[in-house]
Amino acid sequence: MSMQTHPWKIIETRFEKQRVKAAESLFSIGNGIMGQRANFEEVYSGDTLHGSYIGGIYYPDKTRVGWWKNGYPEYFAKVLNSAFWIGLDVKVNGETLDLNTATVKEFYRELNMQHGVLTRRFTVAMPGGLQLSVEAVRFVSMVRTDLGALSYTVQLLNGDAVVEFTPYTHADVKNEDANYDEKFWDFVAQTATAGSSSVTMRTRKTGFSVCWHTNHELKINGQSAALPFTPVEKQAWVGATVKVTAKKNDRLTLFKYTGITSSLNYLPENLAEAAGEVAGEAQQAGFSALMEEQCKAWEEKWAHCDVEIGGDEEAQQGIRFCIFQLLQTYTGKDARLNVGPKGFTGEKYGGSTYWDTEAYCIPFYLATAGDKVARELLRYRYNQLPKAIENAQKLGFTDGAALYPMVTMNGEECHNEWEITFEEIHRNGAIAYAIFNYIRYTGDRNYLSECGLEVLIGISRFWAQRITWSEERNKYVMLGVTGPNEYENNVNNNWYTNYIACWCLRYTRESMEWVKANHPGRYADILRIAHFDELNEWTQWTDITEKMHFPEDEQRGIYLQQDGYLDKEQILVKDLDPAQRPLNQKWSWDRILRSCFIKQADVLQGIYFFEDEFDVETIRRNFHFYEQRTVHESSLSPCVHAILAAKIGDMDKAYEMYLRTSRLDLDDYNKEVNEGLHITSMAGSWLAVIQGFAGMRVKDGKLSFDPKLPEHWKSLSFKVNFRGEVVQFKA
Amino acid sequence: MSMQTHPWKIIETRFEKQRVKAAESLFSIGNGIMGQRANFEEVYSGDTLHGSYIGGIYYPDKTRVGWWKNGYPEYFAKVLNSAFWIGLDVKVNGETLDLNTATVKEFYRELNMQHGVLTRRFTVAMPGGLQLSVEAVRFVSMVRTDLGALSYTVQLLNGDAVVEFTPYTHADVKNEDANYDEKFWDFVAQTATAGSSSVTMRTRKTGFSVCWHTNHELKINGQSAALPFTPVEKQAWVGATVKVTAKKNDRLTLFKYTGITSSLNYLPENLAEAAGEVAGEAQQAGFSALMEEQCKAWEEKWAHCDVEIGGDEEAQQGIRFCIFQLLQTYTGKDARLNVGPKGFTGEKYGGSTYWDTEAYCIPFYLATAGDKVARELLRYRYNQLPKAIENAQKLGFTDGAALYPMVTMNGEECHNEWEITFEEIHRNGAIAYAIFNYIRYTGDRNYLSECGLEVLIGISRFWAQRITWSEERNKYVMLGVTGPNEYENNVNNNWYTNYIACWCLRYTRESMEWVKANHPGRYADILRIAHFDELNEWTQWTDITEKMHFPEDEQRGIYLQQDGYLDKEQILVKDLDPAQRPLNQKWSWDRILRSCFIKQADVLQGIYFFEDEFDVETIRRNFHFYEQRTVHESSLSPCVHAILAAKIGDMDKAYEMYLRTSRLDLDDYNKEVNEGLHITSMAGSWLAVIQGFAGMRVKDGKLSFDPKLPEHWKSLSFKVNFRGEVVQFKA
Repeated sequence: MSMQTHPWKIIETRFEKQRVKAAESLFSIGNGIMGQRANFEEVYSGDTLHGSYIGGIYYPDKTRVGWWKNGYPEYFAKVLNSAFWIGLDVKVNGETLDLNTATVKEFYRELNMQHGVLTRRFTVAMPGGLQLSVEAVRFVSMVRTDLGALSYTVQLLNGDAVVEFTPYTHADVKNEDANYDEKFWDFVAQTATAGSSSVTMRTRKTGFSVCWHTNHELKINGQSAALPFTPVEKQAWVGATVKVTAKKNDRLTLFKYTGITSSLNYLPENLAEAAGEVAGEAQQAGFSALMEEQCKAWEEKWAHCDVEIGGDEEAQQGIRFCIFQLLQTYTGKDARLNVGPKGFTGEKYGGSTYWDTEAYCIPFYLATAGDKVARELLRYRYNQLPKAIENAQKLGFTDGAALYPMVTMNGEECHNEWEITFEEIHRNGAIAYAIFNYIRYTGDRNYLSECGLEVLIGISRFWAQRITWSEERNKYVMLGVTGPNEYENNVNNNWYTNYIACWCLRYTRESMEWVKANHPGRYADILRIAHFDELNEWTQWTDITEKMHFPEDEQRGIYLQQDGYLDKEQILVKDLDPAQRPLNQKWSWDRILRSCFIKQADVLQGIYFFEDEFDVETIRRNFHFYEQRTVHESSLSPCVHAILAAKIGDMDKAYEMYLRTSRLDLDDYNKEVNEGLHITSMAGSWLAVIQGFAGMRVKDGKLSFDPKLPEHWKSLSFKVNFRGEVVQFKA
Repeated sequence: MSMQTHPWKIIETRFEKQRVKAAESLFSIGNGIMGQRANFEEVYSGDTLHGSYIGGIYYPDKTRVGWWKNGYPEYFAKVLNSAFWIGLDVKVNGETLDLNTATVKEFYRELNMQHGVLTRRFTVAMPGGLQLSVEAVRFVSMVRTDLGALSYTVQLLNGDAVVEFTPYTHADVKNEDANYDEKFWDFVAQTATAGSSSVTMRTRKTGFSVCWHTNHELKINGQSAALPFTPVEKQAWVGATVKVTAKKNDRLTLFKYTGITSSLNYLPENLAEAAGEVAGEAQQAGFSALMEEQCKAWEEKWAHCDVEIGGDEEAQQGIRFCIFQLLQTYTGKDARLNVGPKGFTGEKYGGSTYWDTEAYCIPFYLATAGDKVARELLRYRYNQLPKAIENAQKLGFTDGAALYPMVTMNGEECHNEWEITFEEIHRNGAIAYAIFNYIRYTGDRNYLSECGLEVLIGISRFWAQRITWSEERNKYVMLGVTGPNEYENNVNNNWYTNYIACWCLRYTRESMEWVKANHPGRYADILRIAHFDELNEWTQWTDITEKMHFPEDEQRGIYLQQDGYLDKEQILVKDLDPAQRPLNQKWSWDRILRSCFIKQADVLQGIYFFEDEFDVETIRRNFHFYEQRTVHESSLSPCVHAILAAKIGDMDKAYEMYLRTSRLDLDDYNKEVNEGLHITSMAGSWLAVIQGFAGMRVKDGKLSFDPKLPEHWKSLSFKVNFRGEVVQFKA
């Protein structure tokens, strides 16, 4: 893709048909409430993935498996592709404008990250010979979160012609990701008038309603055109057509102001009216004024979360792209929402919540958006505690043990591969760790008493039941798990999982003691509700933490990923034939599993989380051992390596890993950006700069820094929120 | 189910609606070429599973998985449910006969195993008050393997009435087991006349054609009735209707003679004619003569494979049921066919070939049907060697390594769970073992030179690549496998798999040396075709067999199922809450995996195969340890325990396990007989008698016996074929 580096913009300067879907992901826009892939407004008959998503509007798609196993969830809840509200057909002298059939002479697209605006300009020759230029500008508003707006300007370059615009919304959309090729939306109502159109749809099963109301308007050379629009209606499709007899160089601009309201925020009977109001007010304000609002809102966001890197435009663009995507995916305004791995940029992973949020995203939102936003993310899990207890019960656990889901929309487990769904239980640890991390950063220990302790107790009880005693070893063991390194399944004694489990048990005990001392009344309530038996449960927990088995290699001085890891043939990544990579596209699954290659090094993840518990030499030995065996085929992998490499002073490796994480999508390392962006791993990129190069840590309630910049960086500066203050870092 | 024991018959004496599907499985009939569940001929509006199967007529059903993994096969080849040729609607004074709506006064069904004939007799009161009795007799011919025939006699018991018969064939059938609810058959042609009907269908994708041609005939009180049949045709449905004004006690008998011909054996253009000839010749011979043929053919079969047990009718019925099912599933007449786990009795497992054939069925067919039949089963795999090499290549193996499929119809892998498809590789060992077993029994070493050696070389090469060297252990290891005990997945060093792999390497080497010495020209050809490097490959094989790691527990003196088995909580089956069983219906998959409970004890399977390599005390210790932990939720499990228990003299356990295996379906231990019978495990039941109680072994080319009968058995006698002689055993 002909992408250019630029400190504030993502720029594409050539039209490449085979890269349309990838660009649609990269140029996506959103406002934390909804998002839109960078599909073209006009007809495009080539390969495209239309995508328009509204946070929290999901569908429980019936599970599809080859061989059912007890415990599988009945469905996978996925955020739905929804109405294509940007639609705008353009005909010139009866010929349809379509970049797949026209001759594209010039093409320029930019995503202005500073202002949250997508602009596309192109010049084409139509099959019949007419030439025209187009400028399309659009955004979803950060100020009016129910609003999307676009302007679309056509200019004839070599003659006069009749230009016909048909702005429309097409609501009868299907998910590309649908297990049984079913439709997920039912039609409710629609209207089309000369000046506006409206369509309301309702999701099947979940019954969410959404209304899209568009006011459209035509200006010619900046003046409102008094030309009549003719309404058009089809099946869940509303729009209107207007014809202009235009002269060469006339600027014909079509505006769309679309209010998008959902039953998450309105009563179903008021949806259409509310959407109409959003559109009407927007139209009244006018496109320029809305743009100004938008620019200002984004500038305010950047004011306290920008990261400036001097002397390295690639690195600068990379980090801003990550921050921009995180900001437009989640704003913390709605505790029902969370951060899907692909945000609003694609359907894969269903827009659902993964452990990514706790392990990677929370530190970012803590530092840039503030305590309240991070707290909403914690409360999301608190609210789902009853479901986590149910999930554990389905797997045979009892007495209030809680297993948080691997993938969820509403707290219920959605994933359906046994080795992940039932065994990738380390996620429970990350959810406890996020509470610790939040309190360490904010000092807000009262969160424990309010919500956190109940979550911790549920999680620790799960561990206490899941860990078993081995007579043979005279140790506690944890059998049959999958660690964050998903290139191993059903292993015994995954070091990371054992470690974080024991940490949970200790931290829960400490937290209980703190709440007991500081909020005795609330503590008594929590114990009573949880039927907690201090004496027996604490005794058991202590026994586990004292007698847990941790696989190690004493000779090498490293922790072992799991029992038997060294039985594998030890080959290093550098000795792998590049033609064999990425392994997950080249090797069969069994071969990956029995190889020593690691998708994401979970021992290092543990060392990263609990850094203070290891001396630098230990970190260095483990880093060296695992980095050589890690293929980084998880987007969540390189950031941790960047941070640890900086920690041990291996700045070349740190920089290599930083570029890999921050430009993963821009440079499409894994050849899959067409499916959407890796939103959650972008938080890891931010961590690589802040915790890696700037060396930021919280110690004893204070921020500390230990900057180690890549040699060619001239400067690094950023701001973080910390305990009510904005701290400016410069180096 | 009101089942009665009887030495030669399966008898049901009551009509129970909730047991209709189970009975349909138990009373199935077949002739090795095709089979038919015991569906009612007349309309049945209650719960039923129509099933009519033709060996070798399969469809590649597109794979359905939740999460695709590299290496998964594109489809699952399944034997298809095919036309319902037994159809016969009966109306009495306009009322349809339907056991779901009529009042059933008497009901009797028997499967005569001695003669291969299914008979059903019942008396009903129709809703309108008329009473009638019916006798339905049917069989699929062992003599004319393209023929199915039935007679259906109605008698009015309390008055005169108009009886209307509509014999028909309905060919527009769907599989119950279809991944995407698609149809698998296309219509080709049909005709219906007064005396016959014919319909031809073709399978989608695979293009197999089948024609069903029925001649129908009515007799009244034994005399041909000169009443006109009116042809009827619907969509892929052909039949004819005849009306009889019948008097009380008149015997109205409708005969159907159905020729079923397929493109496996005929040119497509000759199918219909051939089917017509089969039906015509059968009609000419008449039902009684056909029955006589059938009885004689079955008696001849029994003459050299019956097992008589004196003093225990339950045990007698059980073993004859097993033998009967095996005989009607596979006759060895067609090397393209094999033994599906459910034979022709249900759709589950797709009618495909599993390792069951080699591990369990071959000894049965060797002893009862003779060398040639067993040889056909070996050749089935020989013919599929190129596909086995392809299967291995898909998983990254090279140089002619062969991995036989877990499930197949034509040599290609069909199964799609990674832990089984890619990792349950012990199947390769069983296929090699079958060659050894065949030669041990028959003395036919020339089979090695003709076919066997090529298969052995491919298999051994697979092991040599699959086994890796562990620097850590200074031993060879085999990582990431699933043993026959499928309640463990992705384990390291499964003792059974390691053992049989090393045995394969040794046996292949020995076999190569024998062929080299005895057929040097052929040997040179095999080496050349396989590009076999004697020096290097043999050296590597020897090194592996000398330095392989076998997990053991020295203290207990037992072999360990896999590395780390003793890390599990050791609970015994006797201490399991019965309400938790069967585990596979009560526990989530992860819980089963990390428990110590065993579906099928693979260490014992290995000891059974290679008995001579272990002393009795070792067998006893291992048996005792594993039997206590085995839940026998595989149908293939109890027979091996029965044999080993007899070996070590634990006759109570041997008898318990024998009843469990031989009456698994009759007594419906696993509550699933409605889905079909466990055909392949029936061979295990036979082994339990012959190798267990009679203690039959082949040693140094001679049969030996070591009888140990259950105390209350008065006698045991059977015949086996051995090297051209019929050996009669009596004890």
